Amino acid sequence: MQTLNVALGDRAYPIHIGRGLLGRAELVLARLKTPRVAIVTNDTVGPLYLGGLRAALEQAGVNVSVVSLPDGEAYKTWETLNRIFDMLLTERCERSTTLVALGGGVVGDMGGFAAACYQRGMPFIQIPTTLLAQVDSSVGGKTAINHPLGKNMIGAFYQPRLVLADIDTLATLPDRELAAGLAEVIKYGLIRDSDFLAWLEASLERLRARDPEALMYAIERSCRNKAEVVAADETEQGERALLNLGHTFGHAIETGLGYGEWLHGEAVAAGTMMAAELSRRLGWLAAGDVDRIEALFVRAKLPVWGPKLGAARYLALMAHDKKVEAGRLRLVLLHALGRARVHGEAALSEIAAAIEARCR
Amino acid sequence: MQTLNVALGDRAYPIHIGRGLLGRAELVLARLKTPRVAIVTNDTVGPLYLGGLRAALEQAGVNVSVVSLPDGEAYKTWETLNRIFDMLLTERCERSTTLVALGGGVVGDMGGFAAACYQRGMPFIQIPTTLLAQVDSSVGGKTAINHPLGKNMIGAFYQPRLVLADIDTLATLPDRELAAGLAEVIKYGLIRDSDFLAWLEASLERLRARDPEALMYAIERSCRNKAEVVAADETEQGERALLNLGHTFGHAIETGLGYGEWLHGEAVAAGTMMAAELSRRLGWLAAGDVDRIEALFVRAKLPVWGPKLGAARYLALMAHDKKVEAGRLRLVLLHALGRARVHGEAALSEIAAAIEARCR
Ligand SMILES: NC(=O)c1ccc[n+]([C@@H]2O[C@H](COP(=O)([O-])OP(=O)(O)OC[C@H]3O[C@@H](n4cnc5c(N)ncnc54)[C@H](O)[C@@H]3O)[C@@H](O)[C@H]2O)c1
Ligand SMILES: NC(=O)c1ccc[n+]([C@@H]2O[C@H](COP(=O)([O-])OP(=O)(O)OC[C@H]3O[C@@H](n4cnc5c(N)ncnc54)[C@H](O)[C@@H]3O)[C@@H](O)[C@H]2O)c1
Ligand SMILES: [Zn+2]
Ligand SMILES: [Zn+2]
Repeated sequence: MQTLNVALGDRAYPIHIGRGLLGRAELVLARLKTPRVAIVTNDTVGPLYLGGLRAALEQAGVNVSVVSLPDGEAYKTWETLNRIFDMLLTERCERSTTLVALGGGVVGDMGGFAAACYQRGMPFIQIPTTLLAQVDSSVGGKTAINHPLGKNMIGAFYQPRLVLADIDTLATLPDRELAAGLAEVIKYGLIRDSDFLAWLEASLERLRARDPEALMYAIERSCRNKAEVVAADETEQGERALLNLGHTFGHAIETGLGYGEWLHGEAVAAGTMMAAELSRRLGWLAAGDVDRIEALFVRAKLPVWGPKLGAARYLALMAHDKKVEAGRLRLVLLHALGRARVHGEAALSEIAAAIEARCR
Repeated sequence: MQTLNVALGDRAYPIHIGRGLLGRAELVLARLKTPRVAIVTNDTVGPLYLGGLRAALEQAGVNVSVVSLPDGEAYKTWETLNRIFDMLLTERCERSTTLVALGGGVVGDMGGFAAACYQRGMPFIQIPTTLLAQVDSSVGGKTAINHPLGKNMIGAFYQPRLVLADIDTLATLPDRELAAGLAEVIKYGLIRDSDFLAWLEASLERLRARDPEALMYAIERSCRNKAEVVAADETEQGERALLNLGHTFGHAIETGLGYGEWLHGEAVAAGTMMAAELSRRLGWLAAGDVDRIEALFVRAKLPVWGPKLGAARYLALMAHDKKVEAGRLRLVLLHALGRARVHGEAALSEIAAAIEARCR
């Protein structure tokens, strides 16, 4: 097991990464306020991993309540969130009860938002079970649900007290989901860690084959990058925005196609190609750089072309996104491989051209 | 105009109290991030005060969007909250847009919670128009909506950037609402300010007659008390809980009768009598102290007896309330007039007896 620390003063918390962690109740126990937890999971993950976690906790004397949500991004809504509140209230969970989110990013985002709102805030633990959740969504305290008019529009910054990333859970993850997680892993290399990018170029097939050592290294290094960014800029006033590389384009794809058509990581990959293409047009990246990014995504079995929604539709959807300030599109672009920056000056026509060039 | 400061470090904010403040756009302008506001009001307050506020802001060059909610505690729900999100999204409000809540505590609580959640947090200004909101709910950053199983169960701690208490708006407030606000004013005297309590005993009829000078003094002193408590204990780990005098009993009345039957302040008055009665039974207050409290509430035209729901039902409803820790009822009681403390040791039978003694 490896342990990282997210340095947020009196809200600092550990990230444990390793094998067999679900059965190690003492790691959870150490972070509880009272021996009482409410586990939020879903109908796919629950049957696989709830039993083991629950048994370990109950054996350690913890009182456990559970709610299982329907599976899917389409259910990341207020109605589903309310099922968590219903459970918390009917089971008489207290403000000191700890909510535990066991699942992928959808369960983590909803569980975290529920914890942020229940009685104005209850303690919260993340047990991410997808690669994407282990390297990205479980770390950093962003929580949210979707609104029909925009993804992740309603949410809170709310930090967990612990992240427990058990690599063994990745054994049952569908290949497509593993690939989607790799999109975020590659992102860290692109925005701030060119050594990691080189390691990924050397190791991608080991990751695809779920070599535990390679996964361990990639997850640890991704979390370290994310933890550093979050500690420096918790509420995304500055540097944290760089984590959104490919995301403004990607959200347009997700919303344009309807939530759940493409996976988040898939949309991020295609969106990152658009950001890279725009960076090339601004003279920041060489054509060869763009090719290197594309090659890595292709090896990860990720899409490198966006769906043909039309540039106008992309721009309209992007204007609805959060990364808008004073009516201008603020985009994360690449100054070099391993170095990102926020850019608010690109002409809409230039952005449109980059989008068109990366749709097929 | 008088100005107080809520000392919360980099989230400190001013409370302006005075006459004619709605027309003074410069006070609002000074606290905006961008010249763009989204006003949340309701169908009663909007027709009275929205026009003046809106005209002043637009004249000062501010872009104004508006949503008007149905009036009443019964609408303090997710569905109504969602109408705010719908407006913010269809009007393309940005994360830097400031949400302005113009109305009583219901509008303020919902507007504040919407601001806390929209894109994970947008700036927020309170313009309270009831006495209760001016002395209590607009200050301190508690926001919430109700859940069918409990009042204010879903919410956030989220501080405004400004509170603008325009005393002129109280002119149109129904007598019953004024009285409800007085319950919270009297509360400050009871829990931590015996000089203020004496002033209230001398001045209650002037307040009932809406003498502006008396109102100004009472609001300013109430806000000062609240601001001090909030600055010392923002998220209610300790002292802030004292502000809940009468509230655990009161919430049981509100929920037991169905939201909207009794006003919040009315429930708090009757609930405070129960807390006082229990304090007397514990030997902390003299019978004469309880009589003094009762006399003040009676002069304020507030109920001093709870509805006959039966002690068992009260206790069941109170156990659903937030002020429960490890299965024990934690209650705010009075050690003396002007001094409150949290007590978690009272026997349920003793609590039940105090409730019965104060129901009629
Ligand atoms: N909060 C953040 O900072 C942040 C960052 C990135 C993404 N997100 C959000 O995360 C979500 C995407 O997360 P995700 O990719 O984990 O999707 P997901 O939660 O939908 O999980 C993907 C699928 O895998 C299943 N699954 C999960 N763990 C499994 C396992 N161990 N074995 C087998 N199946 C398993 C899930 O039930 C689901 O069907 C999006 O809603 C996105 O907005 C949030
Ligand atoms: N956030 C907190 O710290 C806090 C503290 C106390 C109470 N509260 C909440 O506040 C709410 C009660 O607030 P309230 O008492 O202001 O109730 P309210 O908001 O329902 O207002 C009372 C009535 O007066 C009307 N009204 C408002 N201003 C008026 C004016 N100037 N002239 C004429 N009519 C006017 C309203 O439309 C409403 O009908 C409850 O939901 C309670 O939970 C919150
Ligand atoms: Zn992402
Ligand atoms: Zn109150």
